[in-house]
Amino acid sequence: MSLHAVIMAGGAGTRFWPASRAARPKQLLPLAHGRLLVVATVERLAGLCAPDHVWIVTNRRQVRALMKALPGFRSDRILVEPEPRDTAPCIALAAARLGAADPGATMVVLPADHVIEPVDAFQRLVRRGAQLAADGKTLVTFGVSPSFAATGYGYIERGPALDDQEPRAHASLRFCEKPDADTARRFVERGLLWNSGIFVWTVPALRAAFAHAEPALAAAAEAMFAAAAAGQKARLTRAFKAAPKVSIDRAVMEKAPTVAVVEAAVRWHDVGSFPAIAAVGIGGEGRNFALLSGGASWLTLQSEDNVVYAEGKRTVALFGVRDLVVVALGDAVLVCPKDRAAELKELVEHVRAQGRTDLL
Amino acid sequence: MSLHAVIMAGGAGTRFWPASRAARPKQLLPLAHGRLLVVATVERLAGLCAPDHVWIVTNRRQVRALMKALPGFRSDRILVEPEPRDTAPCIALAAARLGAADPGATMVVLPADHVIEPVDAFQRLVRRGAQLAADGKTLVTFGVSPSFAATGYGYIERGPALDDQEPRAHASLRFCEKPDADTARRFVERGLLWNSGIFVWTVPALRAAFAHAEPALAAAAEAMFAAAAAGQKARLTRAFKAAPKVSIDRAVMEKAPTVAVVEAAVRWHDVGSFPAIAAVGIGGEGRNFALLSGGASWLTLQSEDNVVYAEGKRTVALFGVRDLVVVALGDAVLVCPKDRAAELKELVEHVRAQGRTDLL
Repeated sequence: MSLHAVIMAGGAGTRFWPASRAARPKQLLPLAHGRLLVVATVERLAGLCAPDHVWIVTNRRQVRALMKALPGFRSDRILVEPEPRDTAPCIALAAARLGAADPGATMVVLPADHVIEPVDAFQRLVRRGAQLAADGKTLVTFGVSPSFAATGYGYIERGPALDDQEPRAHASLRFCEKPDADTARRFVERGLLWNSGIFVWTVPALRAAFAHAEPALAAAAEAMFAAAAAGQKARLTRAFKAAPKVSIDRAVMEKAPTVAVVEAAVRWHDVGSFPAIAAVGIGGEGRNFALLSGGASWLTLQSEDNVVYAEGKRTVALFGVRDLVVVALGDAVLVCPKDRAAELKELVEHVRAQGRTDLL
Repeated sequence: MSLHAVIMAGGAGTRFWPASRAARPKQLLPLAHGRLLVVATVERLAGLCAPDHVWIVTNRRQVRALMKALPGFRSDRILVEPEPRDTAPCIALAAARLGAADPGATMVVLPADHVIEPVDAFQRLVRRGAQLAADGKTLVTFGVSPSFAATGYGYIERGPALDDQEPRAHASLRFCEKPDADTARRFVERGLLWNSGIFVWTVPALRAAFAHAEPALAAAAEAMFAAAAAGQKARLTRAFKAAPKVSIDRAVMEKAPTVAVVEAAVRWHDVGSFPAIAAVGIGGEGRNFALLSGGASWLTLQSEDNVVYAEGKRTVALFGVRDLVVVALGDAVLVCPKDRAAELKELVEHVRAQGRTDLL
């Protein structure tokens, strides 16, 4: 089996402003316990895929920063999306390119900006997925046991177990989009799993699945496969741009006849916004947490339940405060309540409205 | 009349940490609408005193920073206190030194760290004080009409008016130390004035007043005058160190028989802690205020009643917060509630206890 990995590193993300910027999205932040998320993602694949079987799909603005972050990475394995079109066209593009060189390849697709630990458990999951996908028709996804009734994730409903091997794998009954709070509670009660956004399949299985997608996407995907196989870059770009903007979940997974879900018994975190520092940072007194890099330090006194994100030689001191997010790096400092951190997009829009494009 | 000015620039001050440090006390912060307080204090004297009649009393650690802040200032007009001993010995030292060169001088004594505006009104006050002090026995102080029942200032009770000239001057009946809240309310109701900490007198009048101070101080002051007149530096230092630690208010003003208080109709602010930025900074939406220097900027969204202090090329962004102090400069960021800002000494002690002397 020839296993390739496709890392999706396209997102911009405003939830980590001012740490994240247009040219420095979340995956380039040191959110993996101080390492850049994308670096941790590449390193997580070591021993699982040959180095030249690891691909990154990104956008033009991030290429330079990615190459700087990953000095040994082969530049011809960095695929540039002509424009952002959600995950289905992105995955079709990557499958077309790697399939041109290795038509029977098995591929694992994973976001660049998740923390997944431990590495050996992750690799065991991917190998199990590759084994299930080896029939050339099963699309494999990975489901995480919910630790709370999250509204920010999609859910997967499990059907019958496929076998009695570990890690456990089931037929997938249903993909559910991000629910409201009540629905999320019901999902958790009924044992649904979080959709991790990680997939394994063979290139032929994916190509066949795209053929059952909506006609515009099916045609665009098929055109991408044909163009890549013929080495026609301009045609590949045209086909990509003709694809509708749609996620792989909606476009393919929800409709595919043979989908398996592997139970992912790993610590998985999508590090969605600053309060996630409580999961990926260091803890201090008073349930304060910090993510520090580049020589940053922190100290707290009579303060509780705050999160601190700091880069560079500086100290963040909290005195008598609670439930805050405090961010300090280079040219910016942000203070906001933890329960507003998910709304940072509003502040970023305000920054734009103020003409402060230097901060975007 | 030969008018000298003595600027007291000895204080360390922890209430502006992390902006203020051991080698960079409050008077070296840009709290005067972006200018350093001590620079604004020196500039406020222009046209009132000849440049070589302006003296600064400070401590050894601040000399270099003061000379850098005041490039044209004569280094022999910077007097170094051998050790901190409160205002009475400090003023005796300065009076002895300038009296040695100019025995009949009139001197105005003023703290380096107050904001007083407008300049012409301030100078009119000092000239009025100098006129009252010209009898060679009156000690002149300046009283500010209270804008609230402050517990952080001393108060002065006025007696009969001395004449009908403007600015108004009264005999001073009583110096009152910082009161508790109830007493402060009574003081304000009864028309007492805030003690501005600014004084005018002749050198002979001050020397005579020191003679009525407690014996140890009287002896030390007289020894300083004699040593300075004889040009004996070591003896001057010894005499200074022999003086008890006591304020000029308690040691001299409360006991002197002839004290006048001039009504100071100026905007006077001692900029006691970060929340004072509401008085000396720029205002924004939502009753937010900022004091910015060195290219700093700020922006706020859905935030109210905060104060921001920032130095250097950085932007402080507040989103959804209220009643906070946010400080950002060089190697430090501080976040604390406005109503805890007066207690920053506690945090500074914590910093010391953590061994972070680099931040002190």
